Amino acid sequence: MAEPERIQRVALTELVVQAFEASGVARGNAEAVARALVAAEIDGHSGHGLSRIGDYAAQARTGKVAGHARPEVVRTAPGWLSVDAAHGFAYPALEAALAELAPLAREQSVAGAAVRRSHHCGQLGAQVERLAEDGLVALMVSNTPRAMAAWGGREPLFGTNPIAFAAPRPGDAPLVVDLSLSKVARGKVMAAKKAGEPIPEGIALDADGRSTTDPDAALAGTMVPVGEAKGAALALMVEVLAVTLTGATPSREASSFFEADGPAPGVGHLILAFDPACTPEPGFGAGIDALVAAMTSETGVRLPGSRRIKARAQAEAKGVAVPAHLLAEIRALAGED
Amino acid sequence: MAEPERIQRVALTELVVQAFEASGVARGNAEAVARALVAAEIDGHSGHGLSRIGDYAAQARTGKVAGHARPEVVRTAPGWLSVDAAHGFAYPALEAALAELAPLAREQSVAGAAVRRSHHCGQLGAQVERLAEDGLVALMVSNTPRAMAAWGGREPLFGTNPIAFAAPRPGDAPLVVDLSLSKVARGKVMAAKKAGEPIPEGIALDADGRSTTDPDAALAGTMVPVGEAKGAALALMVEVLAVTLTGATPSREASSFFEADGPAPGVGHLILAFDPACTPEPGFGAGIDALVAAMTSETGVRLPGSRRIKARAQAEAKGVAVPAHLLAEIRALAGED
Repeated sequence: MAEPERIQRVALTELVVQAFEASGVARGNAEAVARALVAAEIDGHSGHGLSRIGDYAAQARTGKVAGHARPEVVRTAPGWLSVDAAHGFAYPALEAALAELAPLAREQSVAGAAVRRSHHCGQLGAQVERLAEDGLVALMVSNTPRAMAAWGGREPLFGTNPIAFAAPRPGDAPLVVDLSLSKVARGKVMAAKKAGEPIPEGIALDADGRSTTDPDAALAGTMVPVGEAKGAALALMVEVLAVTLTGATPSREASSFFEADGPAPGVGHLILAFDPACTPEPGFGAGIDALVAAMTSETGVRLPGSRRIKARAQAEAKGVAVPAHLLAEIRALAGED
Repeated sequence: MAEPERIQRVALTELVVQAFEASGVARGNAEAVARALVAAEIDGHSGHGLSRIGDYAAQARTGKVAGHARPEVVRTAPGWLSVDAAHGFAYPALEAALAELAPLAREQSVAGAAVRRSHHCGQLGAQVERLAEDGLVALMVSNTPRAMAAWGGREPLFGTNPIAFAAPRPGDAPLVVDLSLSKVARGKVMAAKKAGEPIPEGIALDADGRSTTDPDAALAGTMVPVGEAKGAALALMVEVLAVTLTGATPSREASSFFEADGPAPGVGHLILAFDPACTPEPGFGAGIDALVAAMTSETGVRLPGSRRIKARAQAEAKGVAVPAHLLAEIRALAGED
């Protein structure tokens, strides 16, 4: 494979914007999507990065994703934002939601944004991190198309239903936790299928609920939840919070984030923001500093999410490393080839 | 062992109240504790039930738990209750918090109660279930004394840090999820120690971070988090929400819930309540009914928490089965022997 090319973040983002505009996406929406995908690529979450551009653009072209959607944010109660992503991309809706959620959380101590009729939201960690950079503690859950069964069952009723959490640190980058509730990401099964290799035992079940090492059988079946029954219970919790409460499309009915045809996925996200000003003396900052100090004083302990800091500094200094086949795809979409 | 004796719930609760009053606990506080322990016993969570009475009473006698504490609930922001359990038992503070949290959630759509200077809160599921019976969706997290390491570490920095969640169902008992973030409960290690038996491989680490089957080595070390690194990340999230945000004592510093001596544990709990009236049409009830229907249509799938319904009906009909040695202990504490 050819060497990845290094491109400055701003120039890469503009190129991605052009790729989406050429696919029928409104400029403002294209910018929000481009920012999110480039950021994920820089952070090392390439599964939520530039590799998505081809499928996103194809979905914009068929109209499965509404490229000109205008997300609507309505404050339906003192502590609540009801957000309609209008079957557009998730990122413009999330940007609009977060802009209103932050001041609301400061006023209320806790506030929520419930997003429905949405699409793939990529790395949830980036969303909660933004709130934490704004001084807030944040929790986010999302559903995804069907991937996991209820405990004891065979039918995929839940998505991998990720959870992300971030907390601000005085004078330092926020603490960020971001995980999906399957034991391993479904992308690893797809990669094994492409490579014609078996998958490890214990990560997936076939359509009859039996453990399998065959990627095709796994894709026709379900992913094993992290921590078995406990992970399945957490996936149910996320399904209720991200779907039932927001009014989104259930994971069991949501269409693929990859295929260009079919109805819009219509998934949901719930974001909660907390104002640490509510913490009694000596306050949140002292508490989080002591907790982080206890963790980092141990050899072998790494703060979750800490790798991203170094990756970002490198990207700013040297540019973003873009795999050659993706760069060719983006340039072709943008009409630059 | 002698057969358990069956006692009617009301009579048993009164006997437990007397046991606590005789140990220096104020009547109102004793009632809240008795209700919670008897309910846990009925629900089959005997580790959070009557087996706790001896240690609770001993802690009330030494003053480690303040038997006459009056919990204080202050609304510090429109959506927030700051709750000081005043180093008394958790249950009176939780009852006081929930009484104010429910109407607040209805007004705000989301509201939180942050409890500090608290003690063992037993089955968290019972607390969120109460809110769900009141028509609200509820989420609760708590810290507990040190039991688990940060991922890659050896020092116990986190408790087993449980998470509970409940959702109301139209015309039916709430859906309840309640789990701790260790792979298995620490009580199983203590039981193995008592029985002089080894513990299964993979559930605990010794003080040097190596897997062990020796219960003594496990109790000197740490419990393995559910789902390994992901469970450790969730335990960190719970530590920040239940401790750092509430202003409670960190798990790494909290004293035992079992020993009568030492400072008060001072742990924390965070409870969030959501009003499902915020859900767009066709509404939360339709969504939860469809989700439960999808789950229960499958053979082999059991709704989490569903066993409790049958156990309660049996306890109401036949009385609560109380192990003979516990009944003797309670009667002795109550001055009835």
